[in-house]
Amino acid sequence: MSKFPELNEQMDLIARGVEEIIPETDLEKKIEKSITENKPMKIKLGCDPSRPDLHFGHSLVLNKLSHFQSLGHQAVLVIGDFTAMIGDPTGRNKTRPQLSMEEAKENSQSYIDQAGVILDKKSLKIVYNSDWLSGLSFNDIINISSKYTVAQMIERDDFTKRYKEGLPIALHEFMYPLAQGYDSVVLKSDVELGGTDQKFNLLVGRHLQKVSNQNPQVIITTPLLEGTDGINKMSKSYDNYIGITENANDMYGKILSIPDDLMATYYENLANLSKDELDGVKKELTQNPRDLKRQLARMVVEIYHDKDEAVKAEESFDKLFIKKDVPDEMPECTITSNVKVIDLITDNALVGSRGDAKRLIKQGAVSIDGNKISDINFEVSKSESYQILKIGKRKFIKIV
Amino acid sequence: MSKFPELNEQMDLIARGVEEIIPETDLEKKIEKSITENKPMKIKLGCDPSRPDLHFGHSLVLNKLSHFQSLGHQAVLVIGDFTAMIGDPTGRNKTRPQLSMEEAKENSQSYIDQAGVILDKKSLKIVYNSDWLSGLSFNDIINISSKYTVAQMIERDDFTKRYKEGLPIALHEFMYPLAQGYDSVVLKSDVELGGTDQKFNLLVGRHLQKVSNQNPQVIITTPLLEGTDGINKMSKSYDNYIGITENANDMYGKILSIPDDLMATYYENLANLSKDELDGVKKELTQNPRDLKRQLARMVVEIYHDKDEAVKAEESFDKLFIKKDVPDEMPECTITSNVKVIDLITDNALVGSRGDAKRLIKQGAVSIDGNKISDINFEVSKSESYQILKIGKRKFIKIV
Repeated sequence: MSKFPELNEQMDLIARGVEEIIPETDLEKKIEKSITENKPMKIKLGCDPSRPDLHFGHSLVLNKLSHFQSLGHQAVLVIGDFTAMIGDPTGRNKTRPQLSMEEAKENSQSYIDQAGVILDKKSLKIVYNSDWLSGLSFNDIINISSKYTVAQMIERDDFTKRYKEGLPIALHEFMYPLAQGYDSVVLKSDVELGGTDQKFNLLVGRHLQKVSNQNPQVIITTPLLEGTDGINKMSKSYDNYIGITENANDMYGKILSIPDDLMATYYENLANLSKDELDGVKKELTQNPRDLKRQLARMVVEIYHDKDEAVKAEESFDKLFIKKDVPDEMPECTITSNVKVIDLITDNALVGSRGDAKRLIKQGAVSIDGNKISDINFEVSKSESYQILKIGKRKFIKIV
Repeated sequence: MSKFPELNEQMDLIARGVEEIIPETDLEKKIEKSITENKPMKIKLGCDPSRPDLHFGHSLVLNKLSHFQSLGHQAVLVIGDFTAMIGDPTGRNKTRPQLSMEEAKENSQSYIDQAGVILDKKSLKIVYNSDWLSGLSFNDIINISSKYTVAQMIERDDFTKRYKEGLPIALHEFMYPLAQGYDSVVLKSDVELGGTDQKFNLLVGRHLQKVSNQNPQVIITTPLLEGTDGINKMSKSYDNYIGITENANDMYGKILSIPDDLMATYYENLANLSKDELDGVKKELTQNPRDLKRQLARMVVEIYHDKDEAVKAEESFDKLFIKKDVPDEMPECTITSNVKVIDLITDNALVGSRGDAKRLIKQGAVSIDGNKISDINFEVSKSESYQILKIGKRKFIKIV
């Protein structure tokens, strides 16, 4: 008997939350073959080590890869170290900095560590495309590039746009999709995953496999997630992201900060809910947004940390921002080592004199993160995130 | 003192008969520098060993290269064996057959032998671009191709046309101009020569040198010569060509066959006339086309063979086609070894019987190329071109 689940069960999980499967019938055939031959499919995901900071935007495609792992298939993470080390020789493309071999290695390891939060690292196969791309000769490149036409390449959205607007497209930019596509030929991948912005590149791989007489890969795209501002796609450059490895408190707080109309999307893409559970949540969203947003934050923190940390994060948040009526904005004070609380109060001119400060501490009118300070020699030590110092009823300072 | 002629003298010869010099001021600067430093300029001419049959159409650019040689500069013939061996992987481009290493070698040698009729072989430097192109890595290719944009490449006439008409341009086709241009970077050429159809490719070399911080090459284009039909450009495929190594008789005959209005062009491009001599000829052309065409034919044969052969070719032509009123068309008979003339006559049914043939020979009514045959045992041997057998007054046969 095959170790793989039945076709329908596999298709249900694979199709959940994806944007496109091209073509779906091919995927079904590949799954059936995998069941019959009792052989896992090879699922390829490429990653760019020049952008090593993973956030929840990346989690969609990583979750999808983990779904394939849970179904018993072989996940292959392709580290695009070759192209990262070349970068963009013109220097025009800021998203393609030229990495040294050292940086490429470090970034790749960092990417793997972060992805390991979502993926099953034990069964994950990790390969580096420099292993085969750096050995290609001019002859090889000419052969590979003869499989694609200029018109096909210009069809890619960003190329079309730039070509029409008369903005330069350097010739080597046509090489990157070919290189990525050639990776699929070398790996003989059955499926390649990517965000919707990767659709063209994934199709190049499918095409190159076809003209190399391989059974071409199915491509599966996942949506691009909106950032916490609800306006732009999640991205480090918009500062609207939640990092995959952020601590529980920050993760919890950032999710609570999202606009209400983003909750349905986040529930769908970030919480591991069944279809029925998701439908139930969506019905309740308008009636009870506050509690459901708290539930979402707890669920997500539980996924990336654990239940215990999720509970603690919620308590800590409540203590700081809800029960104690802490304002949204307040002055900040940066500390690098331990500082006496009395110095903090006087140095930031929160009271008239050092005497006033002493008196307020003795009266129990000073607290840090809701904990009363009564010792006038109490020292504040730097915390991982931040602490709120409260003096009297209306004076706050954020210690970072 | 410099061994090189003065600037004006050099410019006069170099500019003679060329289509464009881009840019002329750079050429002057380079010549001046060459005179001052007493150092020859490097003059590059690329050749494609996939088309090894040289005809008068190629002689224009070869003549130009020989002009530079006569001025003391270094002619460099670049054999494009690398791209010839790759050919066109799609097989769509018939002018780019894929050559084996053996064929590439043979064709290259044949090209060199033919070009040696025009060039000074002793001082000619011959290089093969496979020497540096086959060692390029993917990294190198990406660097080179980053120096050019898609829009710049599509500007090439044939690419523009095909792109507009929706005809496919395979990506590797963009690689060939880059490879040719990169040759200039490797060779650090001062000047590159080519036909007007090569202008774009020559400019790619100039551009690549510029962005590689070299003093960029000047490009010089020579016109494309009309074929003997006066309609199309000279080309083997139109069968309107005169081969550089054709024998004197054929060369002479082919030149006499050109339409009168082509004479000015041929005088200008194929005869080594000074400007004054050329002006003189042009004035006379309409008054005396017959004699001037004969003079042109003699002059050209003299260049590619010698004066003696030119005179002989004219005599032979006259004997055959003018003095003896030989018709333009006649039956042909192919021989591979010596054949008795009496057999030729009877086998080709030119007379009623073998007896008739004998009688005609004895009467002196049979001739070959105007020479009477009186011996009935005379044997015809195969000649390099062809011979005309005449029987009586109106029967002719062409022995090839």
